[in-house]
Amino acid sequence: MVVFSGDLDRVLAAFVIASGAAASGMEVSMFFTFWGLTALRQKRESRGKTLFQKLMGWMTPVGIRELGVSKMNFGGIGAKMLRTMMRQQGVPQPEEMVQMARELGVRLVACQMSMEVMGIRKEELIDGIEVGGVATFLGEATRSKATLFI
Amino acid sequence: MVVFSGDLDRVLAAFVIASGAAASGMEVSMFFTFWGLTALRQKRESRGKTLFQKLMGWMTPVGIRELGVSKMNFGGIGAKMLRTMMRQQGVPQPEEMVQMARELGVRLVACQMSMEVMGIRKEELIDGIEVGGVATFLGEATRSKATLFI
Amino acid sequence: MVVFSGDLDRVLAAFVIASGAAASGMEVSMFFTFWGLTALRQKRESRGKTLFQKLMGWMTPVGIRELGVSKMNFGGIGAKMLRTMMRQQGVPQPEEMVQMARELGVRLVACQMSMEVMGIRKEELIDGIEVGGVATFLGEATRSKATLFI
Repeated sequence: MVVFSGDLDRVLAAFVIASGAAASGMEVSMFFTFWGLTALRQKRESRGKTLFQKLMGWMTPVGIRELGVSKMNFGGIGAKMLRTMMRQQGVPQPEEMVQMARELGVRLVACQMSMEVMGIRKEELIDGIEVGGVATFLGEATRSKATLFI
Repeated sequence: MVVFSGDLDRVLAAFVIASGAAASGMEVSMFFTFWGLTALRQKRESRGKTLFQKLMGWMTPVGIRELGVSKMNFGGIGAKMLRTMMRQQGVPQPEEMVQMARELGVRLVACQMSMEVMGIRKEELIDGIEVGGVATFLGEATRSKATLFI
Repeated sequence: MVVFSGDLDRVLAAFVIASGAAASGMEVSMFFTFWGLTALRQKRESRGKTLFQKLMGWMTPVGIRELGVSKMNFGGIGAKMLRTMMRQQGVPQPEEMVQMARELGVRLVACQMSMEVMGIRKEELIDGIEVGGVATFLGEATRSKATLFI
Protein backbone atom coordinates (compact mmCIF):
# COMPACT_ATOMS: atom_id res chain seq x y z
CA MET A 1 0.00 0.00 0.00
CA VAL A 2 1.36 3.38 -1.01
CA VAL A 3 0.13 6.35 1.03
CA PHE A 4 0.80 9.35 -1.18
CA SER A 5 -1.97 11.56 0.15
CA GLY A 6 -1.71 13.78 3.19
CA ASP A 7 -5.47 14.19 3.57
CA LEU A 8 -6.97 12.95 6.83
CA ASP A 9 -9.82 11.11 5.11
CA ARG A 10 -7.53 9.23 2.72
CA VAL A 11 -4.97 8.43 5.41
CA LEU A 12 -7.80 7.08 7.57
CA ALA A 13 -9.06 4.87 4.75
CA ALA A 14 -5.52 3.53 4.42
CA PHE A 15 -5.27 2.68 8.13
CA VAL A 16 -8.74 1.10 8.26
CA ILE A 17 -7.85 -1.21 5.36
CA ALA A 18 -4.36 -1.91 6.74
CA SER A 19 -5.61 -2.77 10.23
CA GLY A 20 -8.46 -4.86 8.88
CA ALA A 21 -6.06 -6.84 6.72
CA ALA A 22 -3.52 -7.29 9.52
CA ALA A 23 -6.29 -8.36 11.93
CA SER A 24 -7.32 -11.06 9.50
CA GLY A 25 -3.80 -12.44 9.41
CA MET A 26 -2.37 -10.73 6.34
CA GLU A 27 1.06 -9.11 6.23
CA VAL A 28 0.69 -5.41 5.51
CA SER A 29 3.23 -2.75 4.54
CA MET A 30 2.39 0.91 4.17
CA PHE A 31 4.78 3.11 2.18
CA PHE A 32 4.43 6.79 3.00
CA THR A 33 5.57 9.06 0.24
CA PHE A 34 5.35 12.75 -0.50
CA TRP A 35 2.36 14.37 1.30
CA GLY A 36 1.78 11.07 3.08
CA LEU A 37 5.01 11.67 5.02
CA THR A 38 3.36 14.56 6.84
CA ALA A 39 1.16 12.01 8.65
CA LEU A 40 4.28 10.49 10.24
CA ARG A 41 5.94 13.70 11.42
CA GLN A 42 6.28 14.34 15.11
CA LYS A 43 8.13 17.66 15.10
CA ARG A 44 9.14 20.59 12.96
CA GLU A 45 12.89 20.99 12.46
CA SER A 46 14.61 23.67 10.36
CA ARG A 47 18.28 23.20 11.14
CA GLY A 48 20.46 22.23 8.17
CA LYS A 49 17.73 22.57 5.57
CA THR A 50 17.59 24.59 2.37
CA LEU A 51 15.27 27.59 2.24
CA PHE A 52 12.63 25.69 0.26
CA GLN A 53 12.81 22.70 2.58
CA LYS A 54 12.27 25.02 5.56
CA LEU A 55 9.34 26.70 3.81
CA MET A 56 7.78 23.36 2.96
CA GLY A 57 8.33 22.16 6.52
CA TRP A 58 6.52 25.18 7.90
CA MET A 59 3.61 25.05 5.49
CA THR A 60 2.78 21.34 5.80
CA PRO A 61 1.10 19.57 8.74
CA VAL A 62 3.04 17.84 11.52
CA GLY A 63 1.45 14.49 12.17
CA ILE A 64 -2.04 13.12 11.83
CA ARG A 65 -3.44 15.59 14.36
CA GLU A 66 -2.80 18.48 11.96
CA LEU A 67 -4.08 16.87 8.75
CA GLY A 68 -7.12 18.36 7.01
CA VAL A 69 -9.78 16.57 4.99
CA SER A 70 -9.60 16.55 1.18
CA LYS A 71 -12.93 18.36 0.69
CA MET A 72 -14.79 20.97 2.70
CA ASN A 73 -11.97 21.34 5.21
CA PHE A 74 -12.60 25.06 5.83
CA GLY A 75 -9.32 25.65 7.63
CA GLY A 76 -9.52 22.56 9.78
CA ILE A 77 -13.23 22.68 10.72
CA GLY A 78 -13.98 19.77 8.38
CA ALA A 79 -11.31 17.63 10.05
CA LYS A 80 -12.66 18.46 13.54
CA MET A 81 -16.18 17.65 12.39
CA LEU A 82 -15.07 14.29 11.00
CA ARG A 83 -13.28 13.45 14.27
CA THR A 84 -16.42 14.30 16.27
CA MET A 85 -18.61 12.24 13.95
CA MET A 86 -16.27 9.29 14.34
CA ARG A 87 -16.27 9.60 18.14
CA GLN A 88 -20.07 9.79 18.23
CA GLN A 89 -20.26 6.48 16.37
CA GLY A 90 -17.67 4.80 18.56
CA VAL A 91 -15.08 4.68 15.77
CA PRO A 92 -11.48 4.98 17.07
CA GLN A 93 -9.78 8.34 16.56
CA PRO A 94 -7.08 8.59 13.84
CA GLU A 95 -4.21 8.50 16.33
CA GLU A 96 -5.59 5.32 17.92
CA MET A 97 -5.89 3.75 14.48
CA VAL A 98 -2.18 4.30 13.86
CA GLN A 99 -1.43 2.77 17.26
CA MET A 100 -3.71 -0.17 16.49
CA ALA A 101 -2.13 -0.77 13.10
CA ARG A 102 1.33 -0.84 14.66
CA GLU A 103 0.24 -3.25 17.38
CA LEU A 104 -1.17 -5.51 14.68
CA GLY A 105 2.26 -5.60 13.07
CA VAL A 106 1.62 -3.32 10.08
CA ARG A 107 4.98 -2.24 8.68
CA LEU A 108 5.30 1.55 8.28
CA VAL A 109 7.94 2.61 5.76
CA ALA A 110 8.87 6.19 4.86
CA CYS A 111 9.98 6.85 1.28
CA GLN A 112 13.65 7.77 1.22
CA MET A 113 13.59 9.86 -1.97
CA SER A 114 10.68 11.98 -0.69
CA MET A 115 12.49 12.49 2.62
CA GLU A 116 15.60 13.70 0.79
CA VAL A 117 13.71 16.03 -1.53
CA MET A 118 11.62 17.49 1.30
CA GLY A 119 14.58 17.50 3.69
CA ILE A 120 12.79 15.42 6.33
CA ARG A 121 15.13 13.53 8.65
CA LYS A 122 14.33 10.25 10.38
CA GLU A 123 14.29 11.89 13.82
CA GLU A 124 11.46 14.18 12.70
CA LEU A 125 9.22 11.16 12.16
CA ILE A 126 7.44 9.19 14.86
CA ASP A 127 9.58 6.47 16.45
CA GLY A 128 10.06 3.10 14.87
CA ILE A 129 9.44 4.04 11.25
CA GLU A 130 11.57 2.24 8.67
CA VAL A 131 13.09 4.12 5.77
CA GLY A 132 13.05 2.45 2.35
CA GLY A 133 13.32 3.14 -1.34
CA VAL A 134 11.25 2.22 -4.37
CA ALA A 135 12.96 -1.18 -4.37
CA THR A 136 11.55 -1.93 -0.90
CA PHE A 137 8.06 -1.11 -2.15
CA LEU A 138 8.46 -3.15 -5.32
CA GLY A 139 9.71 -6.14 -3.38
CA GLU A 140 6.59 -6.11 -1.23
CA ALA A 141 4.24 -5.27 -4.09
CA THR A 142 5.29 -8.17 -6.27
CA ARG A 143 4.80 -10.75 -3.55
CA SER A 144 1.53 -9.27 -2.25
CA LYS A 145 -2.05 -10.17 -3.13
CA ALA A 146 -3.22 -6.60 -3.49
CA THR A 147 -1.62 -3.18 -3.85
CA LEU A 148 -3.32 0.18 -3.45
CA PHE A 149 -2.17 3.72 -4.19
CA ILE A 150 -3.98 6.06 -1.84
CA MET B 1 -12.08 -1.77 -6.55
CA VAL B 2 -12.46 0.87 -3.83
CA VAL B 3 -14.29 4.04 -4.89
CA PHE B 4 -13.25 6.60 -2.28
CA SER B 5 -13.63 9.67 -4.44
CA GLY B 6 -16.86 11.58 -4.98
CA ASP B 7 -15.62 13.39 -8.08
CA LEU B 8 -17.55 12.75 -11.28
CA ASP B 9 -14.42 12.19 -13.36
CA ARG B 10 -12.96 9.60 -10.98
CA VAL B 11 -16.29 7.83 -10.46
CA LEU B 12 -16.67 7.65 -14.24
CA ALA B 13 -13.21 6.12 -14.62
CA ALA B 14 -14.21 3.53 -12.02
CA PHE B 15 -17.39 2.60 -13.90
CA VAL B 16 -15.66 2.46 -17.28
CA ILE B 17 -13.05 0.04 -15.93
CA ALA B 18 -15.65 -1.97 -14.00
CA SER B 19 -18.00 -2.34 -16.97
CA GLY B 20 -15.14 -3.17 -19.30
CA ALA B 21 -13.91 -5.88 -16.95
CA ALA B 22 -17.39 -7.30 -16.40
CA ALA B 23 -18.07 -7.28 -20.15
CA SER B 24 -14.95 -9.38 -20.71
CA GLY B 25 -16.16 -11.97 -18.25
CA MET B 26 -14.44 -10.89 -15.04
CA GLU B 27 -16.18 -10.69 -11.67
CA VAL B 28 -16.11 -7.10 -10.42
CA SER B 29 -16.92 -5.62 -7.03
CA MET B 30 -16.96 -1.89 -6.33
CA PHE B 31 -16.73 -0.75 -2.71
CA PHE B 32 -18.00 2.76 -2.20
CA THR B 33 -16.54 4.47 0.81
CA PHE B 34 -16.56 8.00 2.18
CA TRP B 35 -17.12 10.58 -0.58
CA GLY B 36 -17.76 7.73 -2.98
CA LEU B 37 -21.02 7.00 -1.12
CA THR B 38 -22.45 10.28 -2.39
CA ALA B 39 -22.56 8.73 -5.87
CA LEU B 40 -25.01 6.11 -4.61
CA ARG B 41 -27.44 8.43 -2.79
CA GLN B 42 -30.95 8.82 -4.09
CA LYS B 43 -32.41 11.19 -1.50
CA ARG B 44 -31.56 13.56 1.32
CA GLU B 45 -32.87 12.49 4.72
CA SER B 46 -32.34 14.32 8.02
CA ARG B 47 -34.56 12.49 10.49
CA GLY B 48 -32.74 10.81 13.37
CA LYS B 49 -29.31 12.21 12.51
CA THR B 50 -26.85 14.19 14.62
CA LEU B 51 -26.31 17.84 13.78
CA PHE B 52 -23.02 17.13 11.99
CA GLN B 53 -24.55 14.26 10.02
CA LYS B 54 -27.37 16.58 8.88
CA LEU B 55 -24.87 19.27 7.92
CA MET B 56 -22.79 16.77 5.97
CA GLY B 57 -25.91 15.40 4.29
CA TRP B 58 -26.90 18.87 3.15
CA MET B 59 -23.48 19.88 1.92
CA THR B 60 -22.65 16.78 -0.12
CA PRO B 61 -24.12 15.73 -3.50
CA VAL B 62 -27.06 13.37 -3.82
CA GLY B 63 -26.26 10.86 -6.53
CA ILE B 64 -24.14 10.94 -9.64
CA ARG B 65 -26.22 13.71 -11.21
CA GLU B 66 -24.97 16.18 -8.57
CA LEU B 67 -21.28 15.23 -8.61
CA GLY B 68 -18.72 17.80 -9.71
CA VAL B 69 -15.43 17.21 -11.49
CA SER B 70 -12.17 17.20 -9.50
CA LYS B 71 -10.64 20.13 -11.38
CA MET B 72 -12.08 23.22 -13.02
CA ASN B 73 -15.60 22.45 -11.81
CA PHE B 74 -16.59 26.12 -11.41
CA GLY B 75 -19.73 25.37 -9.42
CA GLY B 76 -20.92 22.56 -11.65
CA ILE B 77 -20.13 24.07 -15.07
CA GLY B 78 -17.18 21.71 -15.47
CA ALA B 79 -19.38 18.69 -14.83
CA LYS B 80 -22.01 19.91 -17.33
CA MET B 81 -19.30 20.52 -19.90
CA LEU B 82 -17.90 17.02 -19.43
CA ARG B 83 -21.37 15.51 -19.84
CA THR B 84 -21.92 17.46 -23.06
CA MET B 85 -18.53 16.45 -24.40
CA MET B 86 -19.30 12.81 -23.66
CA ARG B 87 -22.68 13.03 -25.41
CA GLN B 88 -21.13 14.67 -28.46
CA GLN B 89 -18.76 11.70 -28.80
CA GLY B 90 -21.49 9.12 -28.32
CA VAL B 91 -20.16 8.06 -24.90
CA PRO B 92 -22.96 6.95 -22.52
CA GLN B 93 -23.92 9.41 -19.76
CA PRO B 94 -22.76 8.65 -16.20
CA GLU B 95 -26.20 7.41 -15.07
CA GLU B 96 -26.35 4.99 -18.02
CA MET B 97 -22.89 3.71 -17.11
CA VAL B 98 -24.09 2.80 -13.62
CA GLN B 99 -27.09 1.04 -15.16
CA MET B 100 -24.83 -0.78 -17.61
CA ALA B 101 -22.44 -1.89 -14.86
CA ARG B 102 -25.31 -3.29 -12.85
CA GLU B 103 -26.73 -5.16 -15.84
CA LEU B 104 -23.30 -6.67 -16.43
CA GLY B 105 -23.39 -8.03 -12.88
CA VAL B 106 -20.95 -5.63 -11.21
CA ARG B 107 -21.43 -5.88 -7.43
CA LEU B 108 -21.96 -2.50 -5.77
CA VAL B 109 -21.14 -2.49 -2.05
CA ALA B 110 -21.47 0.47 0.32
CA CYS B 111 -18.96 0.72 3.18
CA GLN B 112 -20.73 0.18 6.49
CA MET B 113 -18.33 2.18 8.65
CA SER B 114 -18.58 5.23 6.37
CA MET B 115 -22.38 4.95 6.41
CA GLU B 116 -22.41 4.92 10.21
CA VAL B 117 -20.01 7.84 10.56
CA MET B 118 -21.84 9.92 7.96
CA GLY B 119 -25.24 8.77 9.21
CA ILE B 120 -26.34 7.47 5.80
CA ARG B 121 -29.03 4.79 5.94
CA LYS B 122 -29.53 2.04 3.41
CA GLU B 123 -32.86 3.52 2.23
CA GLU B 124 -31.08 6.72 1.23
CA LEU B 125 -29.00 4.80 -1.30
CA ILE B 126 -30.20 3.62 -4.70
CA ASP B 127 -31.99 0.26 -4.62
CA GLY B 128 -30.16 -3.01 -4.55
CA ILE B 129 -26.88 -1.84 -3.01
CA GLU B 130 -25.21 -4.28 -0.65
CA VAL B 131 -23.72 -3.06 2.62
CA GLY B 132 -20.40 -4.52 3.70
CA GLY B 133 -17.40 -3.93 5.93
CA VAL B 134 -13.66 -3.94 5.42
CA ALA B 135 -13.73 -7.72 5.70
CA THR B 136 -15.98 -7.95 2.63
CA PHE B 137 -13.53 -5.84 0.67
CA LEU B 138 -10.51 -7.80 1.86
CA GLY B 139 -12.18 -11.09 0.97
CA GLU B 140 -12.68 -9.90 -2.61
CA ALA B 141 -9.30 -8.17 -2.84
CA THR B 142 -7.27 -11.21 -1.89
CA ARG B 143 -8.92 -13.46 -4.44
CA SER B 144 -8.92 -10.88 -7.24
CA LYS B 145 -6.40 -10.32 -10.01
CA ALA B 146 -6.28 -6.56 -9.61
CA THR B 147 -7.34 -4.00 -7.03
CA LEU B 148 -7.63 -0.26 -7.53
CA PHE B 149 -8.19 2.59 -5.07
CA ILE B 150 -9.89 5.40 -6.93
CA MET C 1 -0.69 1.36 -13.77
CA VAL C 2 -3.40 3.90 -14.54
CA VAL C 3 -2.31 7.54 -14.49
CA PHE C 4 -5.56 9.46 -14.07
CA SER C 5 -4.12 12.48 -12.32
CA GLY C 6 -2.60 15.47 -14.06
CA ASP C 7 -0.79 16.73 -10.97
CA LEU C 8 2.99 16.94 -11.21
CA ASP C 9 3.55 15.26 -7.83
CA ARG C 10 1.33 12.27 -8.66
CA VAL C 11 2.69 11.91 -12.20
CA LEU C 12 6.20 11.94 -10.73
CA ALA C 13 5.31 9.21 -8.23
CA ALA C 14 4.00 7.16 -11.15
CA PHE C 15 7.23 7.55 -13.13
CA VAL C 16 9.46 6.82 -10.14
CA ILE C 17 7.60 3.56 -9.46
CA ALA C 18 7.46 2.66 -13.17
CA SER C 19 11.16 3.28 -13.75
CA GLY C 20 12.10 1.46 -10.57
CA ALA C 21 10.06 -1.55 -11.59
CA ALA C 22 11.39 -1.55 -15.16
CA ALA C 23 14.97 -1.21 -13.89
CA SER C 24 14.49 -4.31 -11.76
CA GLY C 25 13.39 -6.29 -14.77
CA MET C 26 9.61 -6.02 -14.58
CA GLU C 27 7.39 -5.23 -17.55
CA VAL C 28 5.56 -1.96 -16.93
CA SER C 29 2.64 -0.34 -18.74
CA MET C 30 1.31 3.10 -17.90
CA PHE C 31 -2.19 3.99 -19.09
CA PHE C 32 -2.77 7.73 -19.23
CA THR C 33 -6.40 8.69 -18.94
CA PHE C 34 -8.29 11.94 -18.45
CA TRP C 35 -6.13 14.58 -16.72
CA GLY C 36 -3.18 12.23 -17.01
CA LEU C 37 -3.25 12.77 -20.78
CA THR C 38 -2.15 16.37 -20.27
CA ALA C 39 1.25 15.04 -19.19
CA LEU C 40 1.76 13.53 -22.65
CA ARG C 41 0.77 16.56 -24.74
CA GLN C 42 3.37 18.29 -26.83
CA LYS C 43 1.29 20.99 -28.48
CA ARG C 44 -2.01 22.82 -28.39
CA GLU C 45 -4.22 22.27 -31.45
CA SER C 46 -7.72 23.71 -32.00
CA ARG C 47 -8.52 22.79 -35.60
CA GLY C 48 -11.51 20.50 -36.06
CA LYS C 49 -12.55 20.52 -32.42
CA THR C 50 -15.87 21.36 -30.81
CA LEU C 51 -16.11 24.55 -28.75
CA PHE C 52 -15.84 22.68 -25.45
CA GLN C 53 -12.87 20.64 -26.68
CA LYS C 54 -11.11 23.85 -27.67
CA LEU C 55 -11.88 25.41 -24.30
CA MET C 56 -10.60 22.36 -22.47
CA GLY C 57 -7.49 22.29 -24.65
CA TRP C 58 -6.73 25.91 -23.77
CA MET C 59 -7.36 25.56 -20.06
CA THR C 60 -5.34 22.42 -19.42
CA PRO C 61 -1.53 22.06 -19.32
CA VAL C 62 0.53 21.00 -22.33
CA GLY C 63 3.03 18.43 -21.18
CA ILE C 64 4.82 17.75 -17.94
CA ARG C 65 6.55 21.13 -17.97
CA GLU C 66 3.19 22.89 -17.42
CA LEU C 67 1.78 20.61 -14.73
CA GLY C 68 1.11 22.03 -11.28
CA VAL C 69 1.35 20.25 -7.92
CA SER C 70 -1.83 18.96 -6.24
CA LYS C 71 -1.44 21.13 -3.14
CA MET C 72 0.00 24.56 -2.51
CA ASN C 73 0.66 25.17 -6.20
CA PHE C 74 0.01 28.92 -6.00
CA GLY C 75 -0.20 29.40 -9.75
CA GLY C 76 2.83 27.29 -10.56
CA ILE C 77 5.18 28.44 -7.78
CA GLY C 78 4.70 25.14 -5.95
CA ALA C 79 5.69 23.18 -9.05
CA LYS C 80 8.80 25.36 -9.58
CA MET C 81 9.74 24.93 -5.93
CA LEU C 82 9.42 21.16 -6.16
CA ARG C 83 11.60 21.10 -9.29
CA THR C 84 14.28 23.15 -7.55
CA MET C 85 14.16 20.93 -4.46
CA MET C 86 14.56 17.86 -6.65
CA ARG C 87 17.54 19.39 -8.47
CA GLN C 88 19.22 20.36 -5.21
CA GLN C 89 19.05 16.73 -4.08
CA GLY C 90 20.34 15.38 -7.38
CA VAL C 91 16.98 13.84 -8.30
CA PRO C 92 16.34 13.84 -12.08
CA GLN C 93 13.88 16.43 -13.39
CA PRO C 94 10.39 15.21 -14.42
CA GLU C 95 11.18 15.38 -18.15
CA GLU C 96 14.30 13.25 -17.64
CA MET C 97 12.24 10.73 -15.70
CA VAL C 98 9.90 10.29 -18.66
CA GLN C 99 12.91 9.83 -20.91
CA MET C 100 14.42 7.32 -18.49
CA ALA C 101 11.19 5.35 -18.23
CA ARG C 102 10.98 5.11 -22.01
CA GLU C 103 14.58 3.99 -22.32
CA LEU C 104 13.88 1.30 -19.73
CA GLY C 105 11.09 -0.01 -21.95
CA VAL C 106 8.08 1.26 -20.00
CA ARG C 107 5.04 1.14 -22.29
CA LEU C 108 3.14 4.44 -22.43
CA VAL C 109 -0.47 4.08 -23.55
CA ALA C 110 -2.99 6.89 -24.00
CA CYS C 111 -6.64 6.12 -23.25
CA GLN C 112 -8.65 6.23 -26.46
CA MET C 113 -12.00 7.14 -24.90
CA SER C 114 -10.50 10.09 -23.01
CA MET C 115 -8.80 11.27 -26.19
CA GLU C 116 -12.11 11.18 -28.07
CA VAL C 117 -14.06 12.96 -25.34
CA MET C 118 -11.40 15.63 -24.88
CA GLY C 119 -10.76 15.84 -28.62
CA ILE C 120 -7.04 15.14 -28.30
CA ARG C 121 -5.46 13.68 -31.43
CA LYS C 122 -2.46 11.37 -31.51
CA GLU C 123 -0.28 14.02 -33.16
CA GLU C 124 -0.81 16.33 -30.19
CA LEU C 125 0.89 13.80 -27.92
CA ILE C 126 4.61 13.22 -27.62
CA ASP C 127 5.99 10.81 -30.21
CA GLY C 128 5.77 7.07 -29.83
CA ILE C 129 2.76 6.89 -27.53
CA GLU C 130 0.43 3.95 -28.13
CA VAL C 131 -3.32 4.45 -28.09
CA GLY C 132 -5.43 1.82 -26.38
CA GLY C 133 -8.82 1.18 -24.83
CA VAL C 134 -10.01 -0.27 -21.55
CA ALA C 135 -9.47 -3.74 -22.98
CA THR C 136 -5.74 -3.02 -23.40
CA PHE C 137 -5.52 -1.97 -19.78
CA LEU C 138 -7.50 -4.98 -18.54
CA GLY C 139 -5.34 -7.35 -20.53
CA GLU C 140 -2.23 -5.99 -18.83
CA ALA C 141 -3.86 -5.69 -15.40
CA THR C 142 -4.98 -9.29 -15.23
CA ARG C 143 -1.57 -10.68 -16.04
CA SER C 144 0.37 -8.26 -13.84
CA LYS C 145 1.55 -8.66 -10.27
CA ALA C 146 0.41 -5.24 -9.13
CA THR C 147 -1.90 -2.51 -10.43
CA LEU C 148 -2.08 1.06 -9.21
CA PHE C 149 -4.55 3.87 -9.91
CA ILE C 150 -2.72 7.16 -9.50
